Amino acid sequence: MVMIMPKRNVFFISDSTGITAEALGLSLLAHFDGIEFEQHRVPFVDNVDKAREVVTRIDMAREKDGHRPILVMTLVSSDIRAVFSECDALNLDLFGTFINPLSAELGLIPAQEIGMARRVASNEFRVRLNAINFTLKHDDGVSDEDLEEADLILVGVSRCGKTPTSLYLAMQFGIKCANYPLLPEDFERRQLPGTLAQHRSKLFGLTVTAERLSSIRKERRPDSVYSSLHNCRHELVLAEDMMRRENIRYLDTSSRSIEETATTVMQQFGIERH
Amino acid sequence: MVMIMPKRNVFFISDSTGITAEALGLSLLAHFDGIEFEQHRVPFVDNVDKAREVVTRIDMAREKDGHRPILVMTLVSSDIRAVFSECDALNLDLFGTFINPLSAELGLIPAQEIGMARRVASNEFRVRLNAINFTLKHDDGVSDEDLEEADLILVGVSRCGKTPTSLYLAMQFGIKCANYPLLPEDFERRQLPGTLAQHRSKLFGLTVTAERLSSIRKERRPDSVYSSLHNCRHELVLAEDMMRRENIRYLDTSSRSIEETATTVMQQFGIERH
Repeated sequence: MVMIMPKRNVFFISDSTGITAEALGLSLLAHFDGIEFEQHRVPFVDNVDKAREVVTRIDMAREKDGHRPILVMTLVSSDIRAVFSECDALNLDLFGTFINPLSAELGLIPAQEIGMARRVASNEFRVRLNAINFTLKHDDGVSDEDLEEADLILVGVSRCGKTPTSLYLAMQFGIKCANYPLLPEDFERRQLPGTLAQHRSKLFGLTVTAERLSSIRKERRPDSVYSSLHNCRHELVLAEDMMRRENIRYLDTSSRSIEETATTVMQQFGIERH
Repeated sequence: MVMIMPKRNVFFISDSTGITAEALGLSLLAHFDGIEFEQHRVPFVDNVDKAREVVTRIDMAREKDGHRPILVMTLVSSDIRAVFSECDALNLDLFGTFINPLSAELGLIPAQEIGMARRVASNEFRVRLNAINFTLKHDDGVSDEDLEEADLILVGVSRCGKTPTSLYLAMQFGIKCANYPLLPEDFERRQLPGTLAQHRSKLFGLTVTAERLSSIRKERRPDSVYSSLHNCRHELVLAEDMMRRENIRYLDTSSRSIEETATTVMQQFGIERH
């Protein structure tokens, strides 16, 4: 007998990118096991005509599988939201639900202008772009230039998670984050690489379990000393020794997502978004 | 007379990173003008004791400025959520509000396990890490190697937004996105650079207004021909001519955030997250 997992259609609907609606929706759906969710992100629904087209898609999905679809919506305009209220679906309406209590609390009438978040976009864009460029220029210790501009400098052995964490901090929070590998020659010399000793207050370490490091390194160089479990274990011991000796706080990235590592670094290092 | 803008404290509270609570909270607050919001992101509130400490911070904020703080919460555990229900604050409880209707609709009891999103994290981590590494390796046309593995190849003049868009697509959606600059020598030869003609079906163009391009280039090289408005206008005309001639769809990034550009590219190119 073949068990078929029940399936429900979920639509993340937004007048902007839908990234927030999708993230919140996925957190809600993660509470429920044993059901398959067919996901549809529907961005830029910024007028009533586009909303009606989406309603047609929702109706077709319901007719096809016989279940009410689930809608997770971030729509600023109450006119556009109203189009979906006619729909036979479970409607999780994020703005519709919370705007009224917030309006009452603040004693202010909400604006309903689509793309409001863009007002500050231009300056924020520059901050993030500059941070991304800085991080790319200072990825993997390739340059010491302008290192004094860094908000934060991550250190750790090769492939412990420095690059994705640095890029996420720059992209999401506008943080200028450099990163430097700790290499076997640094352990032999018992010294931090390059000019890092001058920037000790900006250093934060990343580490990882030997098993995970070995598995990540094997994707790049299988059957090498570099990726062997024995060598990974050895490098990690030396790196953690060095970080303790140099008074550098460090964090294990093994069981953390990129977002969790980035957020934990910010929390422990005491740094905020720009 | 000095006008003082009224101020309200806002706490984004989560048992995970708080990134979703913050994003949704900021979209809600953007509906209200003429008020300053002092923002506090409070991640990793994963037990009742930590929740009580946060309540103390909230109480202090309220006593200091005389207004009820606003809470935007994504907390899986109903025990932890209950700690905040005693608080004198406006509580926008994202999971508490929507879990019950979702549970009723699905006919399932919600799990209340903190860090549920992590179940799939390990595989997702690999997909994103591989995409980020691919994108870094193929940033700015530095390598043609393995280009057939790309999901998407962005083209456009220098500084039109290719790098941040590529990195966002890799980081957020696990899309392997290469990018190639269109350079004056390509316009002279009237040919796409390198081996791109072989990958025509994966190409998507970015463009930008001459004013914006000039202003972005001036941050890198002020007082240069490269950044002059006249030269930017000239390059953009030639690039757009080339993209039309080669049948490459393209998008103006000028008034778009990184997220909006990435999402629009995905929508127009017809590509989904991995």
